[in-house]
Amino acid sequence: MNFADQLVKAIEKKDSRVCVGLDPVFEKLPLEYAGASDRAEAVFSFSKRIIDAVKGDCACVKANLGFYLALGDGGFATLRKTIACAKGEGLLTIVDCKANDIGNTAEAYAKSFFGFLNADAITINPLLGSDSVMPFLDYCSRDRGVFVLVKTSNASSKDFQDLKTSPRKTLSEEIASKIVEWAEYGLGSEGYSSVGAVVGATFPEEAKKLRRAMKKQFFLVPGYGAQGADAKSLKSFFDDEGLGAIVSASRSVLYASGGKDFAEAADKAAEKMKDEINSALGV
Amino acid sequence: MNFADQLVKAIEKKDSRVCVGLDPVFEKLPLEYAGASDRAEAVFSFSKRIIDAVKGDCACVKANLGFYLALGDGGFATLRKTIACAKGEGLLTIVDCKANDIGNTAEAYAKSFFGFLNADAITINPLLGSDSVMPFLDYCSRDRGVFVLVKTSNASSKDFQDLKTSPRKTLSEEIASKIVEWAEYGLGSEGYSSVGAVVGATFPEEAKKLRRAMKKQFFLVPGYGAQGADAKSLKSFFDDEGLGAIVSASRSVLYASGGKDFAEAADKAAEKMKDEINSALGV
Repeated sequence: MNFADQLVKAIEKKDSRVCVGLDPVFEKLPLEYAGASDRAEAVFSFSKRIIDAVKGDCACVKANLGFYLALGDGGFATLRKTIACAKGEGLLTIVDCKANDIGNTAEAYAKSFFGFLNADAITINPLLGSDSVMPFLDYCSRDRGVFVLVKTSNASSKDFQDLKTSPRKTLSEEIASKIVEWAEYGLGSEGYSSVGAVVGATFPEEAKKLRRAMKKQFFLVPGYGAQGADAKSLKSFFDDEGLGAIVSASRSVLYASGGKDFAEAADKAAEKMKDEINSALGV
Repeated sequence: MNFADQLVKAIEKKDSRVCVGLDPVFEKLPLEYAGASDRAEAVFSFSKRIIDAVKGDCACVKANLGFYLALGDGGFATLRKTIACAKGEGLLTIVDCKANDIGNTAEAYAKSFFGFLNADAITINPLLGSDSVMPFLDYCSRDRGVFVLVKTSNASSKDFQDLKTSPRKTLSEEIASKIVEWAEYGLGSEGYSSVGAVVGATFPEEAKKLRRAMKKQFFLVPGYGAQGADAKSLKSFFDDEGLGAIVSASRSVLYASGGKDFAEAADKAAEKMKDEINSALGV
């Protein structure tokens, strides 16, 4: 099934627009993991328990490649097992890898992330242009998805993404225009495309313009929680039906408690976030 | 020692401006590896023999993360072993990972690539702006380097990188201006900074302008060989002393022969490239 259709179905089934971000850092794990001899194994155990705790509150999880590679030799296998675990619990999975390279290398990345890791969707960085994105779009015409970086949640996203490329357009909006062209590779039956966009929760004003420019795109919205955005400001990221976006939080859920109750605390944090977003949207 | 200083020293010692790109694809390996049961092990053996063959012809090697991750669970360890092998042979090493993410994740990537893999330098994608680049620049003030994507070698690099952000400036040139600011993090004693730039061999006209804009930057120049650029067009990437750039080729060296003589053929291809570039520069 088309990825965007799967995402709509997951949001409706769970009544949740939450994406839990898995950004596990060994040093930040709950106390009981302190001193674990196998860090990769400890991170997998932690990821598994977080997935089990939040599976009822979220439509999908997003695992960040950087935190898994930082585990060393066993990190990539840990990421593969984590994705498999989340899928086994019926969750959609996003690998946040911000992939970008020329054609033949982009094919190797697509094989790694969609093939080997079996992720449902990944994030990609569009700076190299259309031919670098094509190997990923090929998977969108099957059952996978991509979220293309458009306006990232960090303060310095202004450095290049906000540059004016014409009196009425920023680089982010240029990227949005290309995404609208690329959308045809992943059109689903629910009106959305599997070719989505990353738009940071920290920029609600920019989101208004980007929402108007990209009507068929699912927005992946990072920056909720630890990065400072709140539920009220999120309305502009969604469409009139309260669909078209998933909001991601990582640290505020993963490390809601550092004690024995970390899983319960993560569950509560994700549920609270789910309720806050639904309430702000009036759905 | 500062990375840019190490690079100048390596170029002078080897009398070579060549960087051999390690982009190993199992299916393309020489005949003798066909049917190998452990693909990661086969790729490591191949990478090791290529490094041994070309070590006299090149100043550095560049290993592309994508091709190693495509090997699955053992890919990242294979990349670590490959970097260690090249360093053991006295070569400088670049991991081509086009890393990009917000601050705390960029720190995780920096730890993976500079810490765990122990690469001398990496490539980074600047789309997320200054704060996303800082964790990597911190390593440039020690003994490591970065090459920031400015103008990539692929045809679609025009999509965003060539957009005009003012009547006289493109996005690539905006990135170049930031790199000049970032250069202070890695100034060496030879006049170059460890904060370099990726400028594709396929765009010599753009390179002229970028060379003028970035006088202290080492250019990492991909696109030689399989991607079509030749030695004569490379002059504009170097400075007046015939320094300031390293030219990378991957497929034209790695797969110069698919037979038993693959290592010898790679050696010859790298030596020919070295001589062509030196001859075009008159050094």
